[in-house]
This record gives sequence, structure tokens and C-alpha cells, in this order.
Amino acid sequence: MSVLPGRERVVVVGADAAGMSAAHQALRSARAVGKNIDIVVLEKTFDTSYSACGIPYLVAGLVDSTDDLVARTADKHRAMGVDLRLGSTATAVDLTSRRVTAESEDGHPSTVPFDKLVLATGAAPVIPDWATDQHGRLFGGIRPAKNLDDARFWLDLVALPADGGRARRAVVVGGGYIGVEMAEATLARGFDTTLITRHTVMSSLDAHMSERIVAAMRSAGVQVVTDHVVEAAHTVDGHVRSVTTDDGTDYAADVVVLGLGLRPASELGAGAGLALGEHGGYLPDDRQQVAEGVWAGGDCCEVFDRIRRRTVFAPLGTHANKQGRICGHNLVGEERTFAGILGTAITRFSAAGVHVEIARTGLSTTQAAEAGFDAVSLVTDGVTASGYMPERTPIATNVVADRSSRRLLGMQIVGGHQSGKRIDTAAAALWGEMSVDDLAAMDLSYAPPFATAWEAVQLASRRLADRF
Amino acid sequence: MSVLPGRERVVVVGADAAGMSAAHQALRSARAVGKNIDIVVLEKTFDTSYSACGIPYLVAGLVDSTDDLVARTADKHRAMGVDLRLGSTATAVDLTSRRVTAESEDGHPSTVPFDKLVLATGAAPVIPDWATDQHGRLFGGIRPAKNLDDARFWLDLVALPADGGRARRAVVVGGGYIGVEMAEATLARGFDTTLITRHTVMSSLDAHMSERIVAAMRSAGVQVVTDHVVEAAHTVDGHVRSVTTDDGTDYAADVVVLGLGLRPASELGAGAGLALGEHGGYLPDDRQQVAEGVWAGGDCCEVFDRIRRRTVFAPLGTHANKQGRICGHNLVGEERTFAGILGTAITRFSAAGVHVEIARTGLSTTQAAEAGFDAVSLVTDGVTASGYMPERTPIATNVVADRSSRRLLGMQIVGGHQSGKRIDTAAAALWGEMSVDDLAAMDLSYAPPFATAWEAVQLASRRLADRF
Repeated sequence: MSVLPGRERVVVVGADAAGMSAAHQALRSARAVGKNIDIVVLEKTFDTSYSACGIPYLVAGLVDSTDDLVARTADKHRAMGVDLRLGSTATAVDLTSRRVTAESEDGHPSTVPFDKLVLATGAAPVIPDWATDQHGRLFGGIRPAKNLDDARFWLDLVALPADGGRARRAVVVGGGYIGVEMAEATLARGFDTTLITRHTVMSSLDAHMSERIVAAMRSAGVQVVTDHVVEAAHTVDGHVRSVTTDDGTDYAADVVVLGLGLRPASELGAGAGLALGEHGGYLPDDRQQVAEGVWAGGDCCEVFDRIRRRTVFAPLGTHANKQGRICGHNLVGEERTFAGILGTAITRFSAAGVHVEIARTGLSTTQAAEAGFDAVSLVTDGVTASGYMPERTPIATNVVADRSSRRLLGMQIVGGHQSGKRIDTAAAALWGEMSVDDLAAMDLSYAPPFATAWEAVQLASRRLADRF
Repeated sequence: MSVLPGRERVVVVGADAAGMSAAHQALRSARAVGKNIDIVVLEKTFDTSYSACGIPYLVAGLVDSTDDLVARTADKHRAMGVDLRLGSTATAVDLTSRRVTAESEDGHPSTVPFDKLVLATGAAPVIPDWATDQHGRLFGGIRPAKNLDDARFWLDLVALPADGGRARRAVVVGGGYIGVEMAEATLARGFDTTLITRHTVMSSLDAHMSERIVAAMRSAGVQVVTDHVVEAAHTVDGHVRSVTTDDGTDYAADVVVLGLGLRPASELGAGAGLALGEHGGYLPDDRQQVAEGVWAGGDCCEVFDRIRRRTVFAPLGTHANKQGRICGHNLVGEERTFAGILGTAITRFSAAGVHVEIARTGLSTTQAAEAGFDAVSLVTDGVTASGYMPERTPIATNVVADRSSRRLLGMQIVGGHQSGKRIDTAAAALWGEMSVDDLAAMDLSYAPPFATAWEAVQLASRRLADRF
């Protein structure tokens, strides 16, 4: 029985990539099949469809305003037929009575009945205990870089003048994507920048690749501290002055960026009795369904790793967009499936005249061994263009394969301009479960401004293939 | 019975990509398996292992000297154990007596016995009748851009001062890769540049993609004349002054670049009774073998097209390098096969503030239809980076698929900086015989400086996949 006779009400919780992709795909598909549906979207913030990945570039000053990060405004969503309710926090879901309880910013409660539900609540940044006061409030100057409110905070902060001519000091905690990108941003804004990381920078790459990134960041002037964790923040009047690592070293800090990763924001479904995976995310089936009439997509979900054949947590906008669409198709009855991920990712560190591109797909040597493969790997140094072309840059390619099956398992790239995007060649090969010999043999594009006659990715694959 | 007891003599004809790859791989492989081989390489010019593809960039002034185009000098080859004989033109092969007849520059003949033979004689530029005098000599100012002697000719020519303040005029005949690249070069050198082509520019792309290239070249100031052929050259004192097209139009020309394509230089083997294909090239098996003890590699060969399942002529350095190595492996008994090509290629036109990257792989819509596929295709306009990032450039992607099997058949890209190399993603997908749905679903790299959340290549695939 429907909420309204002859119409079906779809409630979407979360108005970013997955949620709005689901909403619009559902509307398109419903139109196509002649179904009447109403879409209500509940969003706790006042922002929709923004690029969280763009925040470091906004903070760096490369993007003019937070508005530029918004792919589609609330007005636009509404004009396209979505009943979008901003500042509306979903606090509970009842899967039996088919209702979501929501609360407005001023604490006003409401209940929203649904026929079908999409959970797209994203992920929340990991906040360490040392970053907050006894009430759980972040100390002044300490903040993650996850949502547009964070972005506004950072923009205000970097606009402040330096204190008496002294360069301001930023400590970035965490050596993953957001850590590297925010170190670019603070350095670009003139901060003396220190990056502190528990293991190494970009630890999803093999150690010898990470070392190249560390070397590049140091040559740009970033103080990179590896193998240490921050254990305390020292504050004056509630504002951070320094942080202390596990070896007792103090690092002076006017600002501290929290780049310690994300966790799935899955409390809502968990409260309704939905199962969570080992990483704390929803466990949708391949149609993104988590229960009868309930779908989930994006960073609140765990996701199927095609190589390891198990679920992992891989919060990324590109997956959220794809999964959202799949939710939208399926909830009006069009069968679509999500085929899983490979762990493909790319970023860069580009500041102070240093430009390094960083990309990965599949498994690192370490991950492959952990997953039970007999992993072989090799790093090959190449160039992105013919040696005589002015645009050539170095490219180091680490290829990982399985010794017995010769199957390609992964690739990592660290290099200059035009190096990183080549990772997609390996991603496509991994998608097709090809061997390292396939990658060495395939017909990739060559011309002097774009590649060497033995394309860098291919040369690296051939070199590895010749070793075993 | 060997030429020398206990040793095997390998004669290689041609000292460029395929020939020298074969020579060095044979030496490496022989060492690895403990065989004694001698390698004699006969080369008619005095250049070895040079990048013909680099000539336009040398002429444009982006590369300092012809030496920079030489990957490995004669001295280096000799130091690595190759008996390299420059200025030595192979004139005949006798497959029964196992001898090559050669002639030195001064007409001195010699015979070189062999146990094994590699034919790597490359391709020759197509020279139209109107370009030569009655003795078959090119008129002054008219020249292809194929070998290093051509390169030296062009370097001398572009260094000449303009005539009385008037801008010099270049006519480029042919709209393929070399035509587009040489138009970039002559424009960069300050020539008023006209490109005349029988059909359109880059006619291995579908027409609506070619039109974008023509528009870009015109916006840079190149006069592009499509659908016409040059029928005559007008000369004064043996030097070109203008050319006339089939509609009677005269185009004034101080220099004329011949970019009319290549034909396999297969006379040597043809004279020895080897079969030639419909394009005039050798027809090696998948081990690059053409007869007992005889291998052929590179531009003198036809090559297996993996999609059309037939041989085509696709002269390209990257194939020559791969095939040469395969010859080298096989002639010492290591079994290796060449898996064919997809027709992947890339180039650019970059001059006068205009930068357009052009790439293709697999079949165009036209080629797919000709090959009997029920081809569907769609052009999608995207961007190479998130819309708010300063490095974003436009990228038009034309995806071709087979309607019934949904198999991906080809892709073409025309776009700005960082667009072209994405063709390799499609090449990898084609190599694995994946569907357009696979390409739409796969996990490609995303971050704001490098891609949109729906990666351009993937967005284009999805849009096409949704159409049928």
C-alpha cells in the first residue's frame, strides 16, 4: 500500500553525490516507465551536491568560491522536481511503519512516511580525542576538510593575516589523500607546513613509491614526519598552539588539519536494525539494496573489491555517483547492478614549484600478499614523452602481478605532469582480469609528445613480465 | 649447416626500430640460452634507431638537433656487439643459397651469407607524380618528412630568411598524422600554412570529429582545404612556386610537405619470392616469421587487426619495437607471438595558441559498418578536470559499439591538454573485448585536477550505453 494512492513516495536521506544521483535517476526512470513517484530528500546541512574532493583546491586558492564546488544548487534540484528539505536531520528510521523521523535545525520534529527509502548519508571524518574539549567540541584552529562548512572555516582562516610577520604554521595530521592535498593548500597559502603521519605518506602505495612522494613534498618545503602519531594538542584560550607526537616532540601550530580518514555515517540504518560490515558501513547487495524497499549508496556503504573478492570501505565520489544512479534505477524496477571497485585513486602534490602526480589501482605488493596472492612487483623508471620532447616528465611505475597465474594485480604511479592518469590503462586491464603479459602486449597510443615508443606503463609491465 | 661452425649468423636488413630491437633481443636471448650468434645489420642510410615520429617536432624547433632523435648511435650498437654496416643497401636476397647481396654507397657489391634473416626495411613515403621531374627527382622545395635526411632538408629550409619581408608559404599535402604535425611545424616556423587533403583531416576519425580538428587548425590560422587533391606543381628553375588542385585552384608555395602516407618497403622480400598482402606488405605469422629462418618486423609488414580479424597496414614505431623484439626472441628459439593491433594512435596540433589533442583506437563508425558490425556511436562533450579547476579543458569523446553484442568497437578523442592519452583506457578495454557497459562501469581514477566524477571517457560510454 502506498503512502499516497497511485503515487509512490521515495525518501532519500542525504543530498550529495549518491542521494541526488538516486533522486534524479529515479525521476528519469519513473518518467520513462510511466510511474508516478514523489521524491523527498532530507539533508541535514544547507548544502547539496558539492564536491568534497574540491575543498583542498578551494582552500589553496585555485577555486574562486564555495559556490563553484556546488554541482547543482537546491533551487535547481527543486526545479527538477525534487522535494528537497534542507536543515532536516533524519534521526530515526522505522522499517516496519515505513517512516523516517527528522528534526529541523530549531529542533522541530517531523515524521516522513515512505514507500521506498534511499540511505545516502555519506561518511564522517575521524576526530581524535586530543582534538576536542571535554564537551567534544573541536579546539579552535583544528578542523577536518570534509564538508562545505569546513571549507568556509578554512577559507576564513587562510585569509587571516600572519602574526607579526611570522609565517603561520600548519600541521596536517594524516598522510592520506586529504593530508597530501591539504598540505599543498596550506603551503600554497604561505603556511610553514608540517605533515605528521602514523606510517608513511600514501600508505596504500608500496613503501618505495611512498618514499618518492615524501621526497617531493620535502623538496617543496613540507616537513614530513612519518611513523609518529599526534597524541595531544596544547591550547591557549581554547585555540591550538601546538601538537605533541608519541615521541614527545612538540610541533607549533596555528592551524591543524585533521586528515585521519573517514568512517561510514551509518548510524541511521544501524538504529533501524540494518546489518553493518566490519568497517561499519552498510552491506548492500549488488543492486545497492539493503532491505525490502531500502537502498543505500555512497560513502555510508562498504563496497565489493573485485580483486580481493570481499567488501572494503572506499569512500569516493565517483563510486557514490555510480551507486546513486543504480539505486535510482532499481527503486523504480529497472534492474541494474554495481560491479564493484578496484581501488583506483589519483591525487597530486603541486606547490612551491614541485608537481608530483600519485595514482594507484588494484592491490599494492603488501595488500596482494595479505590477500593470499604470490605477489611479484617491480618499479620501472620511465618518461611520459619521448626523451627529446620538452614536455617529458619522469614517471615511476610499480606493477604488481600474481606469480603463478601471471594476472595483473595492481599498479602505482608517481611522476610528473601527465603521468598519473595513465593508471586508468591498468584499471581497465584489471577490470578485464588481464595478465601482466596482456598489458605488455596491448596497443597503447604513442607519439613523441605523449609517450615513449614503449609506453611507460607498458614498459613497466614488460619488465616485470620478463622477470618471472 | 651454419655459415660458421658452432656459430649462427643472423643478418638484419634495416637499422631502425624493428631491426635493432630484433638484433639486441637476439643477442640478449642468445646469451641467456648459451647460443653463439653473430649479428650483421645492413643499413642503407647512415642513420640508426631514429625517431621518424619526432621529425615534425624537430622541424618545429622544439627539438635541438637531429642527434636528439637518435635513440642509439651506430657506435653504441657496435659496442653492444652488433656488426653494423652503414651505407649498405641490400639489393637481393636468395633464400636457397641463404645470401643477401648488398651494395655500398660507391656501388661496391658484396654478398653476406646468413643462417637467419630479419627483414626490417620499413616503409617509404608515397611520392605523387606531380612532385618529381621526368627523372623521378623531387622538385626543389618539395619533400616528405620520413627520414633524417628529410629532417636535415627541412631544418635547412626553415632556417632560410623570408623573401623580402613576405611570409613564406608552406603547402602541406595530406591530412593524416604527418600532415597535421607538419602543419604545426611550418606554422610554428612562421610560414603561411595551407593544408590540402583529399577527404578531410584525420579521416580515420568519424567526420564530426574531424570537423573539430579542422576548426581548431583554422582558428590557429591554417588554411585547410578538404576534398581536393593536388594535381600539379609549377616550378621555376626546378623549384616549386605553386601547386594546383583538381578544381584548378593555385596555391602559392615556397615549400611543399608531402604527407600522403607510406607504403611498405617490401621489394627485397618480394624479389626473393615472399608473399605480399593486399597492402603490399609482408605477411608474417604471429611469430613474425615469413619463411623458414626468415622473420620480418615493423613497417614493411602488414599487421593483424584484432577487431576486424584481418591484416591491415599500420606503420608505427610502437608496433615496430614490439615486433622486432619478437623476431629476436623467436630467431634464437624462444617462442613469442605478436597479438595484433587495435589501430590506436595519438597526435596533436599545437601552434599559434591553439592546442588540440587527437586520439583514436579500434574502429570508427564508418570502419565498423564497413567491417560488417551494426555500429552505434555517440559523441559526448565533457571536460578533463572538475569544472571548477583551472586546468580543465574540453574533451569530445566518440564511442563506437556493436548494437547486438554491445561490444566496444572503438573510440576517438578530440580535446585540449590532458585529453588524448585517455584513449588508452579504451584501448585496454578493446584489448579485453569488453562491452560499452564494462567501460561505463569500471573503476577509473577521479580527483578534481584529473577528471570529473563521471570520468569523460566513462561518461561518454554510459551515454552511448543508455541509448541502445
